[in-house]
Amino acid sequence: MKNALLGCLILTSSLAIAQIKTNNLKINQQRIQTRLLELSKFGELPNGGIGRVAYSKADQEGRAYFIGLMKKAGLDVTIDFAGNLIGRRKGKNPALKPIAFGSHIDSVPNGGNYDGPVGSISGLELIETLNENNIVTEHPLELIIFANEEGGTVGSGALIGKITPAALKSVTQSGLTIADGIRAIGGNPDSLSKVVRKKGDVAAFIELHIEQGGILMTENLQIGVVEGIVGIEHWDATVEGVPNHAGTTPMNSRRDALLAAAKLIVALNEVITSHEGRQVGTIGKIVAEPGAYNVIPGKVILGVEIRDLSHDKIWKLFHEVEAKAKEIAKASETTITFTQSSIGVTPALTAKPIQDKIISAAKAMGFSYRYMQSGAGHDSQEMAQIAPVGMIFIPSVGGISHSPKEFSKGVDIGNGANVLLQTLLALDRE
Amino acid sequence: MKNALLGCLILTSSLAIAQIKTNNLKINQQRIQTRLLELSKFGELPNGGIGRVAYSKADQEGRAYFIGLMKKAGLDVTIDFAGNLIGRRKGKNPALKPIAFGSHIDSVPNGGNYDGPVGSISGLELIETLNENNIVTEHPLELIIFANEEGGTVGSGALIGKITPAALKSVTQSGLTIADGIRAIGGNPDSLSKVVRKKGDVAAFIELHIEQGGILMTENLQIGVVEGIVGIEHWDATVEGVPNHAGTTPMNSRRDALLAAAKLIVALNEVITSHEGRQVGTIGKIVAEPGAYNVIPGKVILGVEIRDLSHDKIWKLFHEVEAKAKEIAKASETTITFTQSSIGVTPALTAKPIQDKIISAAKAMGFSYRYMQSGAGHDSQEMAQIAPVGMIFIPSVGGISHSPKEFSKGVDIGNGANVLLQTLLALDRE
Repeated sequence: MKNALLGCLILTSSLAIAQIKTNNLKINQQRIQTRLLELSKFGELPNGGIGRVAYSKADQEGRAYFIGLMKKAGLDVTIDFAGNLIGRRKGKNPALKPIAFGSHIDSVPNGGNYDGPVGSISGLELIETLNENNIVTEHPLELIIFANEEGGTVGSGALIGKITPAALKSVTQSGLTIADGIRAIGGNPDSLSKVVRKKGDVAAFIELHIEQGGILMTENLQIGVVEGIVGIEHWDATVEGVPNHAGTTPMNSRRDALLAAAKLIVALNEVITSHEGRQVGTIGKIVAEPGAYNVIPGKVILGVEIRDLSHDKIWKLFHEVEAKAKEIAKASETTITFTQSSIGVTPALTAKPIQDKIISAAKAMGFSYRYMQSGAGHDSQEMAQIAPVGMIFIPSVGGISHSPKEFSKGVDIGNGANVLLQTLLALDRE
Repeated sequence: MKNALLGCLILTSSLAIAQIKTNNLKINQQRIQTRLLELSKFGELPNGGIGRVAYSKADQEGRAYFIGLMKKAGLDVTIDFAGNLIGRRKGKNPALKPIAFGSHIDSVPNGGNYDGPVGSISGLELIETLNENNIVTEHPLELIIFANEEGGTVGSGALIGKITPAALKSVTQSGLTIADGIRAIGGNPDSLSKVVRKKGDVAAFIELHIEQGGILMTENLQIGVVEGIVGIEHWDATVEGVPNHAGTTPMNSRRDALLAAAKLIVALNEVITSHEGRQVGTIGKIVAEPGAYNVIPGKVILGVEIRDLSHDKIWKLFHEVEAKAKEIAKASETTITFTQSSIGVTPALTAKPIQDKIISAAKAMGFSYRYMQSGAGHDSQEMAQIAPVGMIFIPSVGGISHSPKEFSKGVDIGNGANVLLQTLLALDRE
C-alpha cells in the first residue's frame, strides 16, 4: 500500500513536472518570420504582393519548399488524392485519433503572405518545438496544408466529401480546372472518395489565422477566440421599372428602377444595423439597364449578401429586407424580386471546450483576447463537419487582407503560435 | 378721293376674303397617313419598328422616296452639302426671307415611324394644300428635311455652323463616319461652311413633332405649345470609399461607396422634385467596383443628368445636389467628386410671337392646348440660334418614343398639321 502510494506520488509528480515543462514551452518566433519571408519568394509580385494561386507554378514551388521543411522536421509526408499536404507525427498511444492543425499556402491573385502561411508555418513550428524538447504527444499529430483554400476550400472540402464532379470541371484562377489542378500538384481527382474522413476520424482540428478584419487591432487585443465561421447567403434582387426618356418623362410619371434600387440599398443597411449582433449585410454588385445618361433605368440587378453565425438570423434579416423591398416597390410602382443565387454556406461553430483551452492558454501567457466570429470562410469550417474545431485569430494591421498590404506583426504571429501550441498540448492531455 | 377710297375698300375686302379663305384651309389627314405608311416601309423591322438610322441604305431609300414627293409637289429640291433636303417654293415678295418648316426622317435603331416623319410629311402636306388652293404666300417657303437628327442634330447643326472637323470623324449608327455618311447621301463634308446660315437669313422656322412624353395624353389635350427645348448638363459623380472584405468588416467600420452613392441617388431625386417647375434629373448610369457579392464597393461612378429650360436653374439645382453630396460624403467617410462629362446643350427658347400664333390657330379650330417644354432635343433647338422658332407637339400614345411602340393617332397628326398650316399663314401675313 505504501509502495503503491509512493509510486502514485512519483507518477503524479512526474506528470506535474512534465506539464510545467510543456506549459513553459515556447515556439521560435524568429524562425517563423524567416520562413514566412522564404515562402513569400514563391509568387512574389513587383508590387510586393503575392500571386500564388492554387495549382499555379508558384503554388507548386511553394508546396515543394514546404514539403522540404516538413520532411526536415521528421514528418511522414504524403500528398493525398485532393493534393493536401499531410505531415504525420506518431503519438504515444496509437489507439487515439490524430489531433490535426494547419492552414493553407495558396493565395488570392495579388494577395498577401499572411492569409494561410501564418497558420501553416506556425503549425510546422509546433512540430519543431516538440522535436527540440523531445516531447511526444499522446495523440498522433497531423499537420495539414490544405490545397486550394482560396478557390473555395477545395482541399478541406474533399476531406469531408463535398467536392462534386461538376465542381471539378470549374476553371480556377490558375487557368486549370480543379481536376487538372489537382493532378498538377500530385493528386488524383478520380480518387477523391478515398480521402474522405468520417466524423470521429480526427480528434480535433485547430487553425491559427490572421483576422482579416480590423477588430483586434482597433481594440488593441492580441488573440481572437473564434466562436464560429459565419454562414453566407447570396441573393439577386431584380428591380423592374419602366425605361423611359430622361428628358420627356416628368418626375412624377417615372418608374425609375435605379431610384427604387437605391432605396433598397439604404434599407438593407438600416435593417442590418438596427439589430444587435455582428451580422453583416452587403450589396456589392449593381447593374442598371440600359445604362445611359439620358434613359431612366428600367431594370436593376443587385447582388445581396448577408452573413451571420446563425442561419436563422440570416433569414430573419432577409425577410425584413424583403418586407422593406415590398414597401419600396409599391411606392415606386416597380417590382422587386429576390432569387437565391447560389447554395449558401452553413455557419460552422467551433467547439466550446477548445475555445476554453484557447482562452486558458491566452490567459496563462497574459495575452488580451476576445470572442469573435470569422466573417471569412476557412478550411476550419469544412473540418467542423467531422471534428471539434478551434480557431485562433491574430491581428491584421489595418484590417487589410487579400491585398499586397496584408500584414501581421511578428510578435502577434508568435503569440498566436504559442497559443496554438498550448491549446494543442491541453487537448492532448485530455 | 372717292376712287381711291373705293380701291382701298376693294383691296381691304379682297384681303379679308383671302384671309377667310386661308382660315378655312384644311390639310388632308388621309394623305398624311398614307404617306406615313409608305415611308414606314423603308427600314421596316420584323417587330414592327423602324431601323432607318441616318446614312444607312434604308435612310437613303427613304430620302429618295421623299425627294420624289417633294418634286411631285412642285418644290425646287436641292440636297445641301450637309445632306439636308431642301424644297423651295417661291413667294410673292422675293425681298422677304423664307419661312422654313420641316423635321427629319432618320430614326434611332429599333425606333418608330412618328418621331420626325410626322413633321416632315405634314410639312409637305402644307405645300400640297397651298398648291391645291392656288395660294402663293408672300414669303418664299422652305421645307427642310434635316439629315441625321438622331445622331446629334447634325444636319441642322451644320446649318448653324457648329459641326467641327472632329465631329465629322465620329462613327454613326450606320457604321459610317459622319463625313462618309454625308457623302453617302449626296452632301460634301468638305464644303459645310457653304451651308451655314446667318441670323436673319430665315424669317422663321416651325416644327411639328410628336411629344415623346405622356403629358398631352395624360391630360387629354390636343396641342402642345412648346416654350423651349431644355438645356442638358451631364456630370460623372465619383464616390470613393474603401473596398473591403464583406465578411470581416463590421458594419460600423465600412466606408461603402455604393451605400453613399445610393443616398446620393435618393438625394438628387429629392432636390429635383422639391422645386416647382418642369426640371428633370436622372441618374441613368452606375458602375460599382470591384463588383462582387463579397466585397464592399470601394468606388462608384454615377452618370448624372439635369435638364431645364433655364441654364441658371440647372446649375442652381446641381449646386444643391453637390451640397447634399458633401453631407453624404462626410457622414459616410467617402469622397464624392463631380466632373462635367460633356459640353452641355444650351436651352433654346421658342419665339413668343410664334407661340401666340400657334395658340390662336389652336383656339380658332377649337383644340385644347397647353404650354410645355421639350425635354428631348430637336433640330428646332439649332435653328433657334439663327431664327425665331416655333414648335408644335401632338400626343404620343402612352408617352412612348424611340421604340417600335411609338404611335400617334391620325386625328392628332391632322390637328397638328392644321395648326402648323395656320401658324405658317399667320406668320406670312405679318
